[in-house]
Amino acid sequence: MIDTAAIKSYFTGLQDSIVSRLEAVDGTPFRDDCWTREHGGGGRTRVLEEGQVFERGGVNFSHVMGGNLPASATAGRPELAGRSFEAMGVSLVLHPRNPYCPTAHMNVRCFIASKPGTEPVWWFGGGMDLTPYYPFEEDVRHFHGSCKAALVPFGPDVHAQYKAWCDRYFHLKHRDEARGVGGVFFDDLNEGGFERCFALTRAVGDAFAEAYVPLVERRLDIPYGERERDFQAYRRGRYVEFNLVFDRGTLFGLQSGGRTESILMSMPPRVQWRYDWHPEPGSAEAKLYEDFLPPRDWV
Amino acid sequence: MIDTAAIKSYFTGLQDSIVSRLEAVDGTPFRDDCWTREHGGGGRTRVLEEGQVFERGGVNFSHVMGGNLPASATAGRPELAGRSFEAMGVSLVLHPRNPYCPTAHMNVRCFIASKPGTEPVWWFGGGMDLTPYYPFEEDVRHFHGSCKAALVPFGPDVHAQYKAWCDRYFHLKHRDEARGVGGVFFDDLNEGGFERCFALTRAVGDAFAEAYVPLVERRLDIPYGERERDFQAYRRGRYVEFNLVFDRGTLFGLQSGGRTESILMSMPPRVQWRYDWHPEPGSAEAKLYEDFLPPRDWV
Repeated sequence: MIDTAAIKSYFTGLQDSIVSRLEAVDGTPFRDDCWTREHGGGGRTRVLEEGQVFERGGVNFSHVMGGNLPASATAGRPELAGRSFEAMGVSLVLHPRNPYCPTAHMNVRCFIASKPGTEPVWWFGGGMDLTPYYPFEEDVRHFHGSCKAALVPFGPDVHAQYKAWCDRYFHLKHRDEARGVGGVFFDDLNEGGFERCFALTRAVGDAFAEAYVPLVERRLDIPYGERERDFQAYRRGRYVEFNLVFDRGTLFGLQSGGRTESILMSMPPRVQWRYDWHPEPGSAEAKLYEDFLPPRDWV
Repeated sequence: MIDTAAIKSYFTGLQDSIVSRLEAVDGTPFRDDCWTREHGGGGRTRVLEEGQVFERGGVNFSHVMGGNLPASATAGRPELAGRSFEAMGVSLVLHPRNPYCPTAHMNVRCFIASKPGTEPVWWFGGGMDLTPYYPFEEDVRHFHGSCKAALVPFGPDVHAQYKAWCDRYFHLKHRDEARGVGGVFFDDLNEGGFERCFALTRAVGDAFAEAYVPLVERRLDIPYGERERDFQAYRRGRYVEFNLVFDRGTLFGLQSGGRTESILMSMPPRVQWRYDWHPEPGSAEAKLYEDFLPPRDWV
């Protein structure tokens, strides 16, 4: 059966190791906030603001429980609505200052939905995706290559399926536009037994640092000016739109009485909206829209 | 019966008169964008960006129709879900640059839901509310006083009811915090016949300019610095959170295939998020939280 102690130990260790790696890159220690939740559970929020490299970023662990699984968590399995639940996960979003460094998101999570007199239902979910402003093809290939390498041991089609799922998930319907260049995404995973599902989830979590941190290290010294910062702030508006209108994790957190400041760590530090703005044809900004946002096979 | 030509004529005239008044204050002409919608209808978007007084603002007219009333429009009356519909309205949001000038929102709208073989169902909705950063008590009283004066002719309790409805509606549940200092809000209004409901809606629309513009004129020359701009940008984050997570009009627009750039005119131009920030006790910023955001009777 499901070993929640092992999952918790993995998730808290993953948070520690990712934070250490990011602190080494940034040179600034993350703030450390432990919190408890009125309705059960709590978490540990690690946050960096106004760092050398990261303008804002958070690596959160949370473990919450409640009497009624919220709708956002049962979109794919309405038969579970109303069960008591336990949810545990690590969720991170990193917004570097340099517009040549991409924003990244990673999440690994486990849900258990219980009802007296029946076996508990459990599943894993997670993924990681990349949101560049001024992308480099080799960086995007590196990120997708890391995702693929992590998933190859779990079956020949798993990476392709989860890559396509990511493209579908991180899609801004109201703009018919991708949030970024994708990555992998999975949810409702309980196929093949607990050991396999937990191992797959660990593989995704473990792959994150090497998939992402080198892209930041490579680009963090590229000079930039107001134009690049403006475009970054404008594109970050899309990140806000996605997370507040569509993201299941954000809505689950807000609906389940989660800790707002930890959930909204994903919000970028500085954002701009501009009416009906379009990049100039042939510009570096147009390249993002034309060559990178439309989903394609990167590896 | 319902006179859609009269409603349309009133709404387009209201848009024109408000835009003229704002252009006189700002000294900058609004951009004028007419658009049509693939699934029926269209609108006229009037936008100002980087004006002298308004950093960003829009006064939109739209008239759209469709085969299936979206869920966001039938929250209070699920029996209407799936009817064909016609929706018409004026919606405005104004974000002045000076943090001593408040942000304002006003909306008046009419819905008609039809089903073959039955009488069409119609209703009006609307309201206006004020979101100050560094508020002045006399300004808030003026705004609420204007709302009350507009509604007094429609019954002794109407203003109090719609004021309380506004406080309930513009509430950020995930922060247990008001978006601003409120105003009036109403929806699903068809009580007392078409003439009364249309007249009440007109009274709200007509009251807006005198309720709001003097507050901007009074405060637009107050000197401010980085501190005030930072706080304004931070508080604008609440505006984004409300509109993207809770606002029925925004969600209706995005769900019904509306024109994204017109709907998201409500987004502030520059926004900041900061982790777990709280104003210093006794500061001007703390005054907003303590003396203005908790709902109270202003008139």
